This record gives sequence, C-alpha cells and structure tokens, in this order.
Amino acid sequence: MKKLEGGVTAARGFLAAGIHAGIKKKKKDIALVCSEVPAVAAGTFTTNIVKAAPVKWCQKVIKEHETVRAVVLNSGVANACTGAAGEKNNLLMAKTVAEHLHIDEEAVLTCSTGVIGKQLPMEEIIWGIQNMIPQLENSIEAGTLAAEAIMTTDTYLKEYAVEFPLNDKVVTIGGMAKGSGMIHPDMATMLGIITTDVSISQELLQEAVRNDVKDSFNMISVDRDTSTNDSLIVLANGLAENDRIVEKKDDYTVFCKALNQVTTHLAKMMAGDGEGATKLLEVEVTGARTKEEAAALSKSIIASNLVKTAVYGSDANWGRILCAMGYAGVEFDPDKVDLFIESKGSRLQLVKDGVAAEYREETATRILSEKKVKAIADIKMGEKKAKAWGCDLTYDYIKINGDYRS
Amino acid sequence: MKKLEGGVTAARGFLAAGIHAGIKKKKKDIALVCSEVPAVAAGTFTTNIVKAAPVKWCQKVIKEHETVRAVVLNSGVANACTGAAGEKNNLLMAKTVAEHLHIDEEAVLTCSTGVIGKQLPMEEIIWGIQNMIPQLENSIEAGTLAAEAIMTTDTYLKEYAVEFPLNDKVVTIGGMAKGSGMIHPDMATMLGIITTDVSISQELLQEAVRNDVKDSFNMISVDRDTSTNDSLIVLANGLAENDRIVEKKDDYTVFCKALNQVTTHLAKMMAGDGEGATKLLEVEVTGARTKEEAAALSKSIIASNLVKTAVYGSDANWGRILCAMGYAGVEFDPDKVDLFIESKGSRLQLVKDGVAAEYREETATRILSEKKVKAIADIKMGEKKAKAWGCDLTYDYIKINGDYRS
Repeated sequence: MKKLEGGVTAARGFLAAGIHAGIKKKKKDIALVCSEVPAVAAGTFTTNIVKAAPVKWCQKVIKEHETVRAVVLNSGVANACTGAAGEKNNLLMAKTVAEHLHIDEEAVLTCSTGVIGKQLPMEEIIWGIQNMIPQLENSIEAGTLAAEAIMTTDTYLKEYAVEFPLNDKVVTIGGMAKGSGMIHPDMATMLGIITTDVSISQELLQEAVRNDVKDSFNMISVDRDTSTNDSLIVLANGLAENDRIVEKKDDYTVFCKALNQVTTHLAKMMAGDGEGATKLLEVEVTGARTKEEAAALSKSIIASNLVKTAVYGSDANWGRILCAMGYAGVEFDPDKVDLFIESKGSRLQLVKDGVAAEYREETATRILSEKKVKAIADIKMGEKKAKAWGCDLTYDYIKINGDYRS
Repeated sequence: MKKLEGGVTAARGFLAAGIHAGIKKKKKDIALVCSEVPAVAAGTFTTNIVKAAPVKWCQKVIKEHETVRAVVLNSGVANACTGAAGEKNNLLMAKTVAEHLHIDEEAVLTCSTGVIGKQLPMEEIIWGIQNMIPQLENSIEAGTLAAEAIMTTDTYLKEYAVEFPLNDKVVTIGGMAKGSGMIHPDMATMLGIITTDVSISQELLQEAVRNDVKDSFNMISVDRDTSTNDSLIVLANGLAENDRIVEKKDDYTVFCKALNQVTTHLAKMMAGDGEGATKLLEVEVTGARTKEEAAALSKSIIASNLVKTAVYGSDANWGRILCAMGYAGVEFDPDKVDLFIESKGSRLQLVKDGVAAEYREETATRILSEKKVKAIADIKMGEKKAKAWGCDLTYDYIKINGDYRS
C-alpha cells in the first residue's frame, strides 16, 4: 500500500473543481466531482429522522441506479428542514449539473452542509455550477480545490489517497471529507467522498462501505450530535481494469483493507479537527466479549463532555472514563478494569482492577499534554476490541457554536 | 399548597447539621440528617454500572429495612472506584454515626460526592461526625448548613419545602439537593434528600418516588454524564399523624402532587445551576403519541451541546433543535413540527410545519437573552407531552471541568 498525494482526483478518470459562488461570504463554497465514465456508487447516510433534501435524493438514486457520473456539493447551507422547496432546489442543483455534462439528472448525487433551515441560494448555485464545468480537471490541485469548497468550520483540508496492487493491476483510492461540528456519525460522516478506479459490483461496494464505517466514520464523535446531512459516498469507475470484483475473494479483502486505510485516516482527521479541538483522543477498549460492546464502550468514553474537558486540561481524572463506561449500556465488572494512557511512546497505568494504580500525577499530565493521546481500557472479559476517536472540548467549541451564524 | 422556608428540617422531627471537616480545603464538606423517630425510607439510584460504595450500601439498606434514622453525606470525595477499601470506609462512616446516635448501623444511609477514585479521608470523616452530633438541630438554619455541606461546583443552595393539608392534618415536605456537573440522571439525581412527616407505607413511598423522578430529576441534564453517585433518598417519619397512607386513594394523590412540587423545584434549580450555566432552558414537547416519546424528544434537545451553545449565544439556530429531535430514537414527521420559543411572557414561532416561520431575528434574540427561556415543539401526532430542563454550555463549563481537581 503506497500513500499518494491528493484526494478525490487521485484515481484514474476522476475530475474535480471547487470555487466560490457566493453562498458563503468569501470562502469556496461549491464543488463538483465527476467520473469520465459511469462509476458504481455506494453510500451510507445519516440515521437522523430529520434528513436533508440531498440525503433523501442520494439514497433514492443509489437505490435505483448502479452507476452515477457526478457529485455536486455545497457548503454554507445544509438544505435541511426546507420542505418541498428544498427538494425542488436540490433537484434543480442535480439537473443543472446534468444539463451541462449532458448526462441524466439521476446520474448526479448532491451533498449540502451548513446552516439548517435556510433555502439554498439557487442563483449562486447555478452560477457556481456553470463556472465550475470548464475548470474540471484530473489534477491533484483540482481535488484540493473541491476539498476546500466543502469545509465549514474545518481548520484544515481533509484528503487522503493510496494505491495498491490488485492482481496484475494498480488500484487507487482517494477521498476528501469535512467535519467538524455536529459530528457523531451513525451510518456515515458529515460529508465524505471517496473515488476509486477499482472495478467492483455495486452490491459488494455497498457491503464494503457498510462494514467499513463501523470501524472508521462511525467510531468518531465531536459533540454527540448526529447531523441531518451525514453522507459518505464511494464511486468506483473501473478504470484500473482489474477483473471486476463480484465475489468475496482475496481481491475484495485487499480492496476493503485499502478502503479502510483511507476512511480511517479521514475519520481521524475529522476527529482531530473537531470544532475548537486542540488534541486528538484515541480510545481503545480491549478484552470485550464482542466487538459491538467494545465499540459501545469506546464511543461512550470519547463522547463524554467530562472526559473531553479533562483531556483539554491534561488532567488524568480517570474516574470520568470509568463513569462514561458505566453508562454505555454494556455489562462489565468495574472491579476488573485496567486503564492506561499513552502518547509518543510513553505508557502509564492509571487504574488496576478498578482502583487507582500507583503513578505520579506529573507523568500523567506530561502524557496528556501531547497533541495525540490514547487511552486503553481492558475489561478482561474476552478477546474483542474496538477503537474510537474524538477530541477535547475547549473554549473555542463554545466560541464557534455560541454564535455560528453571525 | 404553601411554600415554606428551609429544606430538610422543615418537616417535624428532622434534625440536621453541616460543618467543615477537612475533606475539602475550606468549604463545608460533611452533613448529617436525622429523624427523631424511625422514618420509612425510599430511594432511587444511578443506573451507571460503576456504582459508588455509598450507592450500593443505600440500595442494600432500603431493600432490607423499612425504616432508617439518619443519612450522613460528604462532598469532596465520591468514594467511587475505590474497591474493597471504599466499601469498608463507607461502612465505618455509617457505623460512626450509629455509635454516636445509639442506633443500628443499618439505620444509617450514606451519600458521597466529589472526585472519583480517591479514598475517603477517614480521620476527617470521623472527626466530622463526632463534631456534628452536638450541633444537630431542627432549625431552618441547620437544614441550610447541611445543604451547604453537600455543594461541590454548585453556585447556590438548593432547598425547597412545602406544607399542605391532608385530611385533618398538615403535612410538610422539604428537601435539599446538589448538582452541578456529571448531571444526566437516570433513576435519580446527583444527591437529593427529601424529608417529610407524612405517614406512609414503604411500598407506596417507593412507588411515589419511582414515578416522581420520571417527571422531575430524570428530566434534567447538564452534560449527559450519568454519575456514579446519583442518589435520591426520601424519608417519611409519620409525625404529621395523618392516617397512614397504605392505598392509592386521594391522600396518596395529594402527597404525590406535593412531592412533585418539591422534586421539580429542586430539579430545575439543579439544571439552572449546571456547571458554568448562565440560563435555565425548559423544553416542552407536545403532541406526542406517548409520554415516553415526548420525554425522549425533550431530553434529547436539552442534552445537545449544539442547542446548549446556541442558547448561550442567544442564537435562534432552531435547526439544531430539530436535529436533536431527529436522533432521539422517536418516529415523527419532521414536516409537521411547529417550534416556539418563550420568555417573560413573549412567545415567538420559529418553525411552522417543519420549515422556517416568518419572524424577526431580533425578536428571537431578545427572547433568548433572558435568564429563563423555554422552547416548545409540537409534533402533532397525539395528546401526550413532557418537559425537560437543562442549561446553556459556556466557557465556564470548560474552565470548571478542564481543571476540576486542582
């Protein structure tokens, strides 16, 4: 597996563009990702009952069609809670792209992110689409422009790409994503677009995505708020010319592993760039009876405001970790738990068999002062484990969200 | 129903004391509440799997005994995650009270609150108990001293009392409580002690408490963290000399109503004094098919970090409210929801049938700028409703919890 530069344009035959259309004041706010040939499409979407118009549209298109050609995305306005007018605007967004690319409107997926409850400014959207079409390119830079255009409160770009051999061919997977508040994905992330030139059936691509998010995007949380717009879309256009993957053999396994490298990397970038975050927190729960229980425990820890504020303060207040495990809905014996913290190669045991281990507070503070910290909880009931990623809760989260719209 | 001054000493035959024993640096940290005669005891406790030693003790005592005589409480150290040593210390705390009051150790309930994972400083605890005994009094002031001694990050005292006629007698109910972080009660609140002179069977008292918390303490949240120490204890010593309540007749109903006035008042005080809070947020969901669904929706709203930061910023970002409803696990039609905000007699509709209503942003900001704000969501599916209480999420929450222990 080799890491490449770039994101959604890393794979063969994918073009992208991203510009400022005036939906937001100054920053880029509209992006387009296209495949030169029809691309098999799969996706997972928010489980929130309140679903944005583009989410409903993507779910319908992917259900009814094997392939699509393009994804158009905007930031600034989420097109959620916008009623019939919102659905009409979403359709017009897809239609406009379709007309200019001379493809069917149902070959165009849509993603929106931003403020809930406002209608899309359609004049700007249409102007943006018209002006992006001539700029579509397969270059790394074009992919980066698209990744920039979907950022909201994100403080850094989220792109990642890898290539790997598959039988006698080379396959590429690249992706982009955006966070960074209202992040507690349940079936997908805020917005993630992954493109690959692998040749694969829709059924297996969908299955690969569905399984993948359980270990990647569904294992992060910034603020426990599952958004109305969460969408992860994966497009596979087959231009790598590998033998089409239609069964779960070795090539499927290799593809899934590479996909997971891209999704996990993007998910961790998203967690570490949570609104106001200064640190990435990784939590691993080991010794569980099932992977689901390990996942529930680790997610409960990374989602706790009290754990998050303690991490911000580099305060080894481990009782909050045990407390968060205790309300995760998983049976375990608190008197058996071992707890460790780790960063930059240093490891320290805080809890042994449910009570405080002997350690120096200064050592704990030093470990927790790093930018990437890890906590490991062993519940000693079985062999299963799971990892989750989150961030600290800081003054800046309050600042960003106390006055997001102005 | 008449509001009285005071708290746990308002009812006949209840004595209290509260002093500084040295568990905390300066502030009062130990309290004692006693009944002159055996008092029927009931309680609800945290559902967290990680239960503090005093929680396990109280559950055992109330299960095995109809009456108790005293509750001893300390702040500063939670006696949670303290293993066998913690249970031994807890028992010694009960024993010390029992010896000095010449009662059985199993007639003494215990409550602790504070840092998790530290052992109780038993020298200070024993000294504290010895020195409180001579100070036990039935005065309003003595109740207030006890209420002060259980405060942790609370910024104000939480006491409330009422009296009401029951047949030809006058019954009093008074209580005290403490918040104010790690508050997302599930079966009870952090610490709440309610004393009454009503005469009632343990079975009915327990049932009254169990039903009551569904509308009071279980409907508040500060930070979604269900504590290891949540305890609500109700003692009824019968000194009002009403005919003992042993059936669910009118007198039971009257008692439950009065109890609910006390518990709801204390719960709201706790929500409004959430760590760092500047505002009390009340959320009412109406038009639900069941009360449980209305409760789940209203709790999801008050627990959302994004709703809480918007309230802090007086920002009518109502999309976050609909979003929080959408992940509450309740089926409803987002396109039917009406949403209103209210404060000081002003009421404003923000959402009509799932989309933005026409309103002036300035009016919304004015309404949300008050100390007590209310949001009402009507989902138009039935006749049931529920209320929940929470607070805004502010810089001070981060400050308090980023460095709680130092």
